[in-house]
Amino acid sequence: MEQRSFDGEQRRIHTYKRDGDVSYALGAAPAFELLKKRPDKARRVFIHSAWERGDASRELFTLCRGLGIEPEERDKAFAVLSQKENCFVIGEFEKYQSALDPAQTHVVLVNPSNSGNLGTIMRTALGFGVHDIAIITPAVDMFDPKTVRASMGAIFSLRVKCFSSFAEYSASADCGVGRGFYPFMLKARTELGAKPLARRCSLIFGNEATGLPDEFLRVGESVIIRHSTDIDSLNLPMAVGIALYEWRKGIGKF
Amino acid sequence: MEQRSFDGEQRRIHTYKRDGDVSYALGAAPAFELLKKRPDKARRVFIHSAWERGDASRELFTLCRGLGIEPEERDKAFAVLSQKENCFVIGEFEKYQSALDPAQTHVVLVNPSNSGNLGTIMRTALGFGVHDIAIITPAVDMFDPKTVRASMGAIFSLRVKCFSSFAEYSASADCGVGRGFYPFMLKARTELGAKPLARRCSLIFGNEATGLPDEFLRVGESVIIRHSTDIDSLNLPMAVGIALYEWRKGIGKF
Repeated sequence: MEQRSFDGEQRRIHTYKRDGDVSYALGAAPAFELLKKRPDKARRVFIHSAWERGDASRELFTLCRGLGIEPEERDKAFAVLSQKENCFVIGEFEKYQSALDPAQTHVVLVNPSNSGNLGTIMRTALGFGVHDIAIITPAVDMFDPKTVRASMGAIFSLRVKCFSSFAEYSASADCGVGRGFYPFMLKARTELGAKPLARRCSLIFGNEATGLPDEFLRVGESVIIRHSTDIDSLNLPMAVGIALYEWRKGIGKF
Repeated sequence: MEQRSFDGEQRRIHTYKRDGDVSYALGAAPAFELLKKRPDKARRVFIHSAWERGDASRELFTLCRGLGIEPEERDKAFAVLSQKENCFVIGEFEKYQSALDPAQTHVVLVNPSNSGNLGTIMRTALGFGVHDIAIITPAVDMFDPKTVRASMGAIFSLRVKCFSSFAEYSASADCGVGRGFYPFMLKARTELGAKPLARRCSLIFGNEATGLPDEFLRVGESVIIRHSTDIDSLNLPMAVGIALYEWRKGIGKF
């Protein structure tokens, strides 16, 4: 039942573990992003027997061949790793650390708690040309397969780094000096769009349920995305996306 | 095991059916919105025995009393209707039709396919002061409990109406005449933010996977939200939210 992998060993497949060394890109799109953007971290590729063979599968095999990986047709991997029905390709990869680029704009997420939201934020940040994300822990696992999937593989094009506090982040070489800090808060006085955001800055957002604590009112220039009182708040990915859109407008063409 | 409802009849609880007459607001926040915004449509309220009694439960009982509804402690309702663990209140309501306000700005969704996305769009539209949503069918069910829940109950503050085609919508009294049409498309030439959007307009978005068909290039003034080529597209709620944010900026204070 188990197939042999290219190196002649049977290697088992385990359900994802937060404290493990590997994670999984579930689905063809995230798996392709892994193989193209972080080929150095790709370990195994599983394909499902029901995957329709065509241009996509040919491209996958070509990519894998270039990396010395032989895709394994192993339906059991899907039973173990994926709850979704429309998942036919899985890329296994080693987790890795990234340093942030201090010369670039960052998205800073303080205690994000939802893997889908984190993935959506990654994808949106990449879409607006921000490649650096700082996560202040405790937080959802950045390498959770649900995060990787929700990012559509954007995670492999980003530098994402965890810090144990905002103070640790702001004092780090990753952050550097002289950047604008914009905590997004309902209590802020500056309205998004009222004046241009600094070209090199950190856009800072709190937890889904609680937002940023009041102490962030003293960090840089707090900003509010004005909305009606009919809703409590915009959801987190929406707030981040709108902030990124507004920031990007000040930068110009892609 | 089954409790009696206020009118002395035992009425059964069925799983949600798209073609049925009733739907459910799952969770305290959506149920409160139902009772406050569409009390005329509320039928029954179920509470879970594990719901912590306090200010919220007192408010719920007061609201219900005013409507002549006696909340039913019926844990079975939760087993039948909700997959989520953190759901302790369910509001049952009659589905209803709404006419759109032709004097107002609309969000028009062509063939939306995801209930969570539709709910998020509803919540965001309400947040930016747009109360009218047109849905071009085939589309996901606007009254699906997953949509209601994702909207956080915003659906009860909106007018939402389905049309079988965009032509039917644009010729309707709901649409009225003289409004701006802005289809959001990757092939569009006008960039969002380059010029002000009409105060009274329709912001038009396609399906999650396919976007709007090319024929919409001839509808009003097509608009693109510029993003990098590193992603295929922004996700649908994000595109709608950014468009709403930009539109709202031209309108002024809430």
